[in-house]
Amino acid sequence: MTKGLKQKIIEKTAPDLKKVEAALEYHLKPNLDLVRKIASHLLFSGGKRLRPLLMIHSARLCGYNNGFEIEFSIIFEYLHAATLLHDDVVDKADTRRGKKAAHTKWSASKVVLTGDFLLARALDIAAKTKEPNIISVIAKITQDMSQGEIDQLGKKGKLNLSEEEYLEVIKRKTAVLIQGACQSGAILAKAQKEKEDDLNQYGFHLGMAFQMADDLLDYTASAKELGKNPGADMREGKLTLPLIHSLANAAPDDKIWMQDAITAPEFNKDQFEKLKEKLYLYKGIEYTFDRAKGHVKRAKACLDGFNDCQSKQLLCWIADYSIARKV
Amino acid sequence: MTKGLKQKIIEKTAPDLKKVEAALEYHLKPNLDLVRKIASHLLFSGGKRLRPLLMIHSARLCGYNNGFEIEFSIIFEYLHAATLLHDDVVDKADTRRGKKAAHTKWSASKVVLTGDFLLARALDIAAKTKEPNIISVIAKITQDMSQGEIDQLGKKGKLNLSEEEYLEVIKRKTAVLIQGACQSGAILAKAQKEKEDDLNQYGFHLGMAFQMADDLLDYTASAKELGKNPGADMREGKLTLPLIHSLANAAPDDKIWMQDAITAPEFNKDQFEKLKEKLYLYKGIEYTFDRAKGHVKRAKACLDGFNDCQSKQLLCWIADYSIARKV
Repeated sequence: MTKGLKQKIIEKTAPDLKKVEAALEYHLKPNLDLVRKIASHLLFSGGKRLRPLLMIHSARLCGYNNGFEIEFSIIFEYLHAATLLHDDVVDKADTRRGKKAAHTKWSASKVVLTGDFLLARALDIAAKTKEPNIISVIAKITQDMSQGEIDQLGKKGKLNLSEEEYLEVIKRKTAVLIQGACQSGAILAKAQKEKEDDLNQYGFHLGMAFQMADDLLDYTASAKELGKNPGADMREGKLTLPLIHSLANAAPDDKIWMQDAITAPEFNKDQFEKLKEKLYLYKGIEYTFDRAKGHVKRAKACLDGFNDCQSKQLLCWIADYSIARKV
Repeated sequence: MTKGLKQKIIEKTAPDLKKVEAALEYHLKPNLDLVRKIASHLLFSGGKRLRPLLMIHSARLCGYNNGFEIEFSIIFEYLHAATLLHDDVVDKADTRRGKKAAHTKWSASKVVLTGDFLLARALDIAAKTKEPNIISVIAKITQDMSQGEIDQLGKKGKLNLSEEEYLEVIKRKTAVLIQGACQSGAILAKAQKEKEDDLNQYGFHLGMAFQMADDLLDYTASAKELGKNPGADMREGKLTLPLIHSLANAAPDDKIWMQDAITAPEFNKDQFEKLKEKLYLYKGIEYTFDRAKGHVKRAKACLDGFNDCQSKQLLCWIADYSIARKV
């Protein structure tokens, strides 16, 4: 079923994705080889181009279909890459998409500046839409994400992070960009405000589901599937929902053991397996998956007001796939 | 004369500047106290608000005078502050405007993210102009500046930096932002393309003169006047025009002495004074000042096609002042 869903999405999106790849390459146009190299390292390392696809099909769902949606959709891939570059420097993460993170190959300074460059490329293309509201959306995304990251830095290692705080973190970290891509598709199509809001909300719920699934994978997937070590978030002091829910429901002894395990300077594979058992025992895994499923359901409900068409079908599949993906 | 010029500019601009300060404060609006604190540290540390003033008077020179030019002008102060924050992290400079640089008080991560936040605020206000061309200008500025910084990183410590390379560096580092502010004033006023180009070029020449004067001050001003140690650029491996010209014209012995002095691990006050003597001897100071004067002349010539008015007068004074300032 999952495999079938992935296959169907790939088949339906392949022709557009080919054009998206070409546009990403074409618009990189920097004057400096080094910038191209650093930007390409991340940009062409197997991203799924989820954000461009969402903008393209949001625009088409609202009746826009003159072909420019492809070019404009890469705004959100450049923006995504820019934030990843800055995040990698901020988090000092060593790997990204199974490759060495850019800042381990080039100085942090160069990586930060390349992030700025990619943001500038996104803006330049956004200006061509002649839609000031798309610029406002990009401003809001950048503002929310940068503040969210700073906020998250202050919460690193906080063992009593609440579910509410977690939801705020993932909203800013992931959902705002995805909802911005969907909303911008509607703006591009000059859709009614109501439709724009529907797509914005579709994107919000999809983003929340997507991040929750990602946070689940950090415990349930293998290193090979993840492209990084499982449990990496927790080791960086980032508590996610499976752990937050389990901690809140654990017996006192187990709670202490879990907190000790999280903060221990050394952490071996056996301990990680034991921690996972606790996450199942106290239903952190199940609860997170249920919450993610709820968001998928609400995401799809946001599309109820649109006529049936290929783009609507695809957006529904993407929502389903967000929690079905193995990686 | 110089004092008189400064006084005249201050008198003419004081009422607008008061409103600019209020707008800068009002639009900072972050959700997070920490972001406000980091941003304010730089934003309210005695900047001269040159870029807002240039946009305001460029707009008025083209007939725009409905008051919104004040609010829109802060786009370029936020943008300027964002680039300074990223530059401070990149350059690892310890002081800025006589205060400790932000990254010495907060982590580099937080400073980078606050830079992103300020860029987002600039964009949000820019979107309100409903002028996509202003967004394109901002994209071009950000693109040029980020690439210029990366380029400069690669040239650090290059003892045979050519005058041409230097001109490219300062164009990207300083001139593009100033010319963008002037050009955006014209765009806001929906001026003819020709006037827009004139103001763009005024800004370019002003920016070049401004940076050359700044590079002169690094050798001629005192630490107190500068707010940082004289010779700091050179000690960071950044060769500027006074040195480049002198090196190119020095007798072989002196050239070797100068190159040794620049790269010496230790450098005392006597050596700095001796180096300054060489810069006068080989006319590096004089040559740089002459080049700067040439740019001021060309900047003012760009305003020839505009009718006489207060804004034109002020833009001429600012051009003159750019090379007359003590700090």
